[in-house]
Amino acid sequence: MTTNVLRGISMRATPKSCVVGVDFGTLSGRAVVVRVADGAELGSATYDYPHGVVDRALPGSGAPLPPDWALQVPDDYRGVLRFAVPAALADGGVDPGDVIGIATDFTACTMIPTTADGTPLNELPEFTGNRHAYVKLWKHHAAQPQADRINALARERGEPWLRRYGGLVSSEWEFAKGLQILEEAPDVYAAMDRWVEAADWIVWQLCGNYVRNACTAGYKALRQDGAYPSRDFLTALNPAFAGFVADKVDQPIGQLADRAGGLSARGAELTGLPEGIAVAVGNVDAHVTAPAARATRPGQMVAIMGTSTCHVMNAGTLGEVPGMCGVVDGGITPGLWGYEAGQSGVGDIFDWFVTTSVPGDYQREARRRGIGVHELLTELATGQAVGEHGLVALDWHSGNRSVLVDHELSGLVVGLTLATRPEDVYRALIEATAFGTRRIIDSFASAGLPVTELVVAGGLLRNPLLMRIYADVTNLPLSTIGSEQGPALGAAIHAAVAAGAHADIHAASEAMGRKNDAVHVPVPANVAAYDELYREYCHLHDHFGRDASDVMHRLKAIRRAAVDRHPGREVA
Amino acid sequence: MTTNVLRGISMRATPKSCVVGVDFGTLSGRAVVVRVADGAELGSATYDYPHGVVDRALPGSGAPLPPDWALQVPDDYRGVLRFAVPAALADGGVDPGDVIGIATDFTACTMIPTTADGTPLNELPEFTGNRHAYVKLWKHHAAQPQADRINALARERGEPWLRRYGGLVSSEWEFAKGLQILEEAPDVYAAMDRWVEAADWIVWQLCGNYVRNACTAGYKALRQDGAYPSRDFLTALNPAFAGFVADKVDQPIGQLADRAGGLSARGAELTGLPEGIAVAVGNVDAHVTAPAARATRPGQMVAIMGTSTCHVMNAGTLGEVPGMCGVVDGGITPGLWGYEAGQSGVGDIFDWFVTTSVPGDYQREARRRGIGVHELLTELATGQAVGEHGLVALDWHSGNRSVLVDHELSGLVVGLTLATRPEDVYRALIEATAFGTRRIIDSFASAGLPVTELVVAGGLLRNPLLMRIYADVTNLPLSTIGSEQGPALGAAIHAAVAAGAHADIHAASEAMGRKNDAVHVPVPANVAAYDELYREYCHLHDHFGRDASDVMHRLKAIRRAAVDRHPGREVA
Repeated sequence: MTTNVLRGISMRATPKSCVVGVDFGTLSGRAVVVRVADGAELGSATYDYPHGVVDRALPGSGAPLPPDWALQVPDDYRGVLRFAVPAALADGGVDPGDVIGIATDFTACTMIPTTADGTPLNELPEFTGNRHAYVKLWKHHAAQPQADRINALARERGEPWLRRYGGLVSSEWEFAKGLQILEEAPDVYAAMDRWVEAADWIVWQLCGNYVRNACTAGYKALRQDGAYPSRDFLTALNPAFAGFVADKVDQPIGQLADRAGGLSARGAELTGLPEGIAVAVGNVDAHVTAPAARATRPGQMVAIMGTSTCHVMNAGTLGEVPGMCGVVDGGITPGLWGYEAGQSGVGDIFDWFVTTSVPGDYQREARRRGIGVHELLTELATGQAVGEHGLVALDWHSGNRSVLVDHELSGLVVGLTLATRPEDVYRALIEATAFGTRRIIDSFASAGLPVTELVVAGGLLRNPLLMRIYADVTNLPLSTIGSEQGPALGAAIHAAVAAGAHADIHAASEAMGRKNDAVHVPVPANVAAYDELYREYCHLHDHFGRDASDVMHRLKAIRRAAVDRHPGREVA
Repeated sequence: MTTNVLRGISMRATPKSCVVGVDFGTLSGRAVVVRVADGAELGSATYDYPHGVVDRALPGSGAPLPPDWALQVPDDYRGVLRFAVPAALADGGVDPGDVIGIATDFTACTMIPTTADGTPLNELPEFTGNRHAYVKLWKHHAAQPQADRINALARERGEPWLRRYGGLVSSEWEFAKGLQILEEAPDVYAAMDRWVEAADWIVWQLCGNYVRNACTAGYKALRQDGAYPSRDFLTALNPAFAGFVADKVDQPIGQLADRAGGLSARGAELTGLPEGIAVAVGNVDAHVTAPAARATRPGQMVAIMGTSTCHVMNAGTLGEVPGMCGVVDGGITPGLWGYEAGQSGVGDIFDWFVTTSVPGDYQREARRRGIGVHELLTELATGQAVGEHGLVALDWHSGNRSVLVDHELSGLVVGLTLATRPEDVYRALIEATAFGTRRIIDSFASAGLPVTELVVAGGLLRNPLLMRIYADVTNLPLSTIGSEQGPALGAAIHAAVAAGAHADIHAASEAMGRKNDAVHVPVPANVAAYDELYREYCHLHDHFGRDASDVMHRLKAIRRAAVDRHPGREVA
C-alpha cells in the first residue's frame, strides 16, 4: 500500500511530510496533524473558546444582549492556533520541521468587523463596549428584518442571483448582518474598513494576506458569476449602504486549496510551525468534509449530521434547486458547481426529546445498564416494523432550512394514541429527519441533479437504527466517512494541495480521505413501506409548509404577542 | 334550613327517612346512604368486582380473548348488593328500617344475555366456557363490523332514527353486540331469551320485575317514538336477526325515577333492606348525575369529566345535533328531551402524558415536594399567558366521539420547538379537551339548543387550572357538583322519587342535589385570546377530521398492516 500511496505524492513531499488541519467549530477549535502520504491522523488537540458563544451578556461590561443575538470574541480563535496546534504536534510526536502546510475551516457565515490591517474592532478601546464590534456568529439571527428587506427588494427587482440561493437569502449571511450594523451602529459601520469572514480572517492571521475564499464569497456574500449585488441594489436598500461592497467586502478571491500565502513570522510564532510553509485559502466546515469523505464526485451527496444537517454535493452543471441554500462555482472544489442544502434541526430534536419527554423509568433503566437514553430508545425502537408506531412527524422544531426556507415553521406529531410510547415518538422523529433529507434529494433530482450515493459524516452516523432508516427512506446506499475528525482532516487535505504535495483536491482526497462504502444498503420491503409513510410526510409538509394552512406562523405570532403581554418569559 | 327542607318532603317520609343509591362503575360498585330530607350523605362503601374487566382470558378456562373484547361476570354485581349496601348502612350508623327506597345506576351499554327468568347464560354449565355468554361491557369494541353494517344499511334505507344518534350508531350498543352473538355464537343467541341492559338486570335482581328503563332503551337500543328498528331492517341485516327485537329486546318501558317494584324477598336477603321498599327503574351513571348536580333544567349542560367526558343536557324541544350520541324522550328526566354527547379521551390523555412523556427530574421534584406530577405540571403551566406555549393539540388519542364520531382518529400536537417544555404540552392537551367541549357546545347551539351553564362533575373538577381554561374557552360560567359521589347521590335521588318522598325528580334534585354556582367565570381577555386559538383548533379539527386529509385513517391502517407483518406486538 505504501508504494501506491507514494506514487501519489509529488516531489514536494517526503514519506514523513505532514500537514495541519484546524477546524474552528461553534464552541471549540480542533487541530489535527495528518500525514500527506496516506492521511494517517497522527495527533490532535482541541481548545475550548474561553468566551464560548456570547448570547446573554457582553464580556467586560456585562451589558445584556437582546434575544437572537450570538457573538464571539476573535482572540478565542487565536487561542486555537496558539494552544491546539502545538498540542496536536506534541500528541502525535511530530517534528514541526516535517509540517509542510496548514489549512483551516470555519463555521460560516461568521463575520468579523476589522480595521484595514485586520484588527477586530472589539479590540479597539473605543469599541470594546459596543456589541456590534464583536464577531457575529453564524447563528446570530437578529438581522432578520434586514434579510426580509433584501429578499423583498431582490424579488421586486428580479435580481438574477436570488435563484442561486433557492429564492431566499438568509439573515445569517454577510449582507443582512452588515446592514444591521449600518442601521443600528453607524459609528461601528464607519470604522469598519473590512467586513471579514472568520474563515478568511484566520488565514489573514496566519499568512498576513487577506484573500477571500471562493466558497463563502459565493454562499454567504452573494458573489455569482464574478460579481456581487450591484451598487444600485445596495442604494435601494439604504443609500448609506451603497458602498458596502466596494468599500468593505470586495477583495481578491482565492480558489479552495490554493495557497493564500506562506506562514508569516507572526503565524509561525503563534503556532510553532516553520515560517514560510503553505497556508491554504480559508474554507467552511461542511465543505471541507467532502474531500475528507472521498466524496467530491458529482452525485455524491455528503450529509454532515449532528445538531443540524448540512448537505453538500458537486455537479458538473448549473441547476437551480428551489429551497437549496446555494450553488457556487468552485464552492466545494475548483471547477465544479458546489451545491448546499440543510436541515436546521436534527440531532438537537432528538436531544430535546430525550431531555424533555422521556420518563424517569427509562432514564433509570438506561443508567442501570450503563448506556445512554439515546441508546436505550434506539434499542427499543429497533425491533419495530416500518409504520408499526402509527406516527408521522414534521422535523421543524428549529424551522425548515431546505426546501421551504422558513424558520417560523414548527414541529408536529400526528397519530398519537394512548398506546404511544417514548420509543415510538423517538423513532418517528428520526424518520421525520430522514423524510426531510429525502425531500431535499428529490428536489435535487427534479432539478436534473440526481443523487447516487449518500455519504454520512458527523456524530449521528454512530446510530445504526438511524442509518438503516436513512438508507430505507432514501433508497440509496449509505456510506460513512472513515474519520472521527472529518472537517479537520478535510482542512489538512486542503493544506496538502496548497503545499503542492498532491496534484489537486481530488487526488489528495483519494490519497488522504476515508470512506466506508455502502455500509447500509436499502431493504426493498422497508423502502416500499417507507414510500407509503413518506407520502403522508409530504402531505403534511405541503399542507403546513406551503398550502393555505398558516397555522404554524399564526401560532408563533400568537406566542410572541402572549409573551409581550406577559414579560416573565423569553420567546425561544 | 331544616324547616325549609321538611316542607319539601311528602307525607311518605320522615325526617329520618333515607334512601340507598348504588353506582355500578367499570371496576367497582359504590353504595351511598342518603337522607331524603336534605341529601346528606350519611354512609358509603365500595366493593371491587372480583373479576374486574375480563379482557385477556376467560375465567375458569383461561381461554384467551381477542383484542377489543371486554367482558364482566354478573355475579360480581350481586356482590355489590351483598357487601357494599350493608357496609354503607353500617358506615352511616343507619337503621335499615329507616330506608324507604333503593335505586341503581350502571355503566352503559353493558349487556347480559339471560334466560327468561334473568339467569345470566354464563351461569349455565353448558355455557360457562363460552365467551359470548358473559356480560359485554360498555367498552367491548369487537362488534365494530356489525356496527358498520348497521350504519351503512340505516343510511341506505334512510332510517329516520339514525339522525337521533347524530348519524352514527356505536359498536358499543345493543344491536351491534347482539348481532355479533348471532353471527359468532348462534347457540348462545338461540339460548338467550332476553338481551338485558345490566342497568335493568340489577333492578330485576332487586324486585323480580324486568322493566326496561327509558334511558338505555332510547340511547342504546335505538327506541325512538315508541318503536325499535323494524323487522324489515333486521331481516335486511341478517335474516336470522329478524326476531331480535320481538323475541329478545322488547319489554315494558319504565320512566326514570318510577317505581319498578317493591324489594323482593331475595332482594331483601341480598341487601339487608326491608322487603317491599321502593326499587326505582334502572338508570345510567352519567344521566343520574344531572339531578345530583341540580342541573335538570334546559340549557344546563352537565359534563362528567374523568377518564373520558360525558355531556348530558335536557331541552324542551327535539333537535338533531350532528355528532351527538343521542337524543331520547325522557332520557334524563321524564317529560324533557335528554341529549347526550361525549369526548372519548380526556383524563386518560393527561394520565398517558404523565406516564410516558414527563422526564425524571419533574418526577423527582414532585416527589420532593410531596405532590403528584399532575399537580406539578398544573402549577408550572398556571403562570402562562394564553397562547404563550405556541401549541395547539387535537385531543383524539382515543378517537373522537362527538362531534366526529370516528374512533380511527388520533392525537396531534403542532407548534413544537426546542423550547417546548412538558408543562407546555400538558397545558395544550388540557386546552385541546376544552376546545373539544366547546365544539360540542357550538354544535348544540347551531341546532337551536343553547348551553347557558356548564356544570362539571367527575374527578377533573379538582384541577383549578383546567377549570379556569374550560371557563375561558367556553365563555360560560362553570359550576361544580357539590358531592364527591355524584352518580350514587343521583341514584339515591331517583330512589327518593320512586319512594314518593318528593313530588318529582326536579323537586328531589332541588332538595337533595348539590351545586356550587359559577365557581369559575370567564375572564374576557382570556376568552378573546382563546377565540383565536380555538380557530386554529377548528382548522385542524376540520382538516384532519372532515376534509380531504385522511392521514389519521391511513396511519391506523398502515399500523395494522405493519403489526400483521410483525406479530410480536398487539395493536392498541
